[in-house]
Amino acid sequence: MDDPWQKAYDFAVEVARKAGAEIRKAGESEIRVMTKSSTVDLVTKTDERVEKIIIGSLKEEFGEGTHCFIGEESVAKGETCVLTDKPTWIIDPVDGTTNFVHGFPFVAVSIAFAVNKELEFGVVYSCLEDKMYKARRGKGAFCNDEPIQVSDVKDINKSIIISEHGTDRSPEKVTKIFSTMQKILCIPVHGLRGSGTAATNMCLVATGAVEAFFEIGIHCWDIAAGAVIVREAGGILLDVDGGPFDLMSRRMVSANNDIIAKRIIKEIEAFPVTRDDAPIQKK
Amino acid sequence: MDDPWQKAYDFAVEVARKAGAEIRKAGESEIRVMTKSSTVDLVTKTDERVEKIIIGSLKEEFGEGTHCFIGEESVAKGETCVLTDKPTWIIDPVDGTTNFVHGFPFVAVSIAFAVNKELEFGVVYSCLEDKMYKARRGKGAFCNDEPIQVSDVKDINKSIIISEHGTDRSPEKVTKIFSTMQKILCIPVHGLRGSGTAATNMCLVATGAVEAFFEIGIHCWDIAAGAVIVREAGGILLDVDGGPFDLMSRRMVSANNDIIAKRIIKEIEAFPVTRDDAPIQKK
Repeated sequence: MDDPWQKAYDFAVEVARKAGAEIRKAGESEIRVMTKSSTVDLVTKTDERVEKIIIGSLKEEFGEGTHCFIGEESVAKGETCVLTDKPTWIIDPVDGTTNFVHGFPFVAVSIAFAVNKELEFGVVYSCLEDKMYKARRGKGAFCNDEPIQVSDVKDINKSIIISEHGTDRSPEKVTKIFSTMQKILCIPVHGLRGSGTAATNMCLVATGAVEAFFEIGIHCWDIAAGAVIVREAGGILLDVDGGPFDLMSRRMVSANNDIIAKRIIKEIEAFPVTRDDAPIQKK
Repeated sequence: MDDPWQKAYDFAVEVARKAGAEIRKAGESEIRVMTKSSTVDLVTKTDERVEKIIIGSLKEEFGEGTHCFIGEESVAKGETCVLTDKPTWIIDPVDGTTNFVHGFPFVAVSIAFAVNKELEFGVVYSCLEDKMYKARRGKGAFCNDEPIQVSDVKDINKSIIISEHGTDRSPEKVTKIFSTMQKILCIPVHGLRGSGTAATNMCLVATGAVEAFFEIGIHCWDIAAGAVIVREAGGILLDVDGGPFDLMSRRMVSANNDIIAKRIIKEIEAFPVTRDDAPIQKK
């Protein structure tokens, strides 16, 4: 079988579209915030429902037990977050929950698929914009079926860079985040932006709207699909120290090329984060 | 005549739509940057052409000499920027030039109209999203003909706040901007955002997607149309020191309500800017 995962890829696009329609519908009715991990990390009823829809659809299609699942909501409830060699779906049902609650126009469904720990494809559906981004390893990246590619800017002074403030408000982290942003702005670059969703930010790198997006503190489900899309659009992924990208490390620079990525890395002040696949600490 | 400016309002919407189509078309062809006031303040050929289209259309419709015009490009070329009692159009042909050059998805045409120094109506066309925002004094605010209104959030901890880094990279200003943003983030709020265009930012306040947008250094043409839209959507405008909003002062807080506005104002570190209507210094 030359192309074992094409069916899964096509199905992921369908499921992302269905999930996005559900999110739009929920956005039109009243949004009730159920629980909060902090004042800024909102988890809504919709999040949980959409993840159930996605995982339910995938299990129905591919059979219970043959595939593994890493989902934001499942992990929040204590399920494991370790990438094995088994076919694994990595899912963020609603990336940009804060945006969703506020009606800010960037909210994405993110679905990625890995086999033997390698990402095979990624689908990001920016559902309020109705933009379907997708990419399969070795087969190019697309937005609404049009091929996309990263910007060809090599001069950092002509770049737009995206980062996010994250949800952690501890003074040490916030100070490092702002200090990094200020240093990058003053390289100088054309500007800094932030959409409020990592998945969409990576797609903005992939379309060439911005040159780079970096963040410390993101999770594997925020960036797994975007990682394939950025690479297939011609971009690169690195760790924030310039080393190889590690999906589980919660640290990432995605950029149009090596020159831009390395210039930004010079300015990044890192802070410690716990890996996604760290053993769960029992209380 | 009860309704002297309805025709002008309707015409402004038409002109904004025509200008937006021109911007989209230009974005698809290659963009050539003609001149720069700094590395971050890009002025493109499109900017100049679109302003000519807008002002040309308005002069043709309303007669040469009866109305005054304040336009970003005209002022850049040395025309006066003083608001008189005469009917005056205040125009930003391409708000978000940096976004435009990069293909970042927020670019707006902003057209406002003032009589006796009072803003009568404003039209903001976010042309890549195809969202037409408009408002006339006393008649409500709309997006694509649907009524819009500001958020009802009164708790600053549940707010999203927008600001921008601006185009000035002088260390004193940049430091105050980042310091202000950091203090606001740590109130804490749900998040900080920035679209890269003041006109769109104000429309995001008007639709309730964010609670407030503030900036020092904006120009009257960036915010005149948005000012009417925010007010008609139920929001308020203030100076960054809490005093009355002054269109020509280059300082503004736009918010959903007084509580949110005043809480933000407590954190804003102001820096000096030259008024838009300051006498031009001859070299």
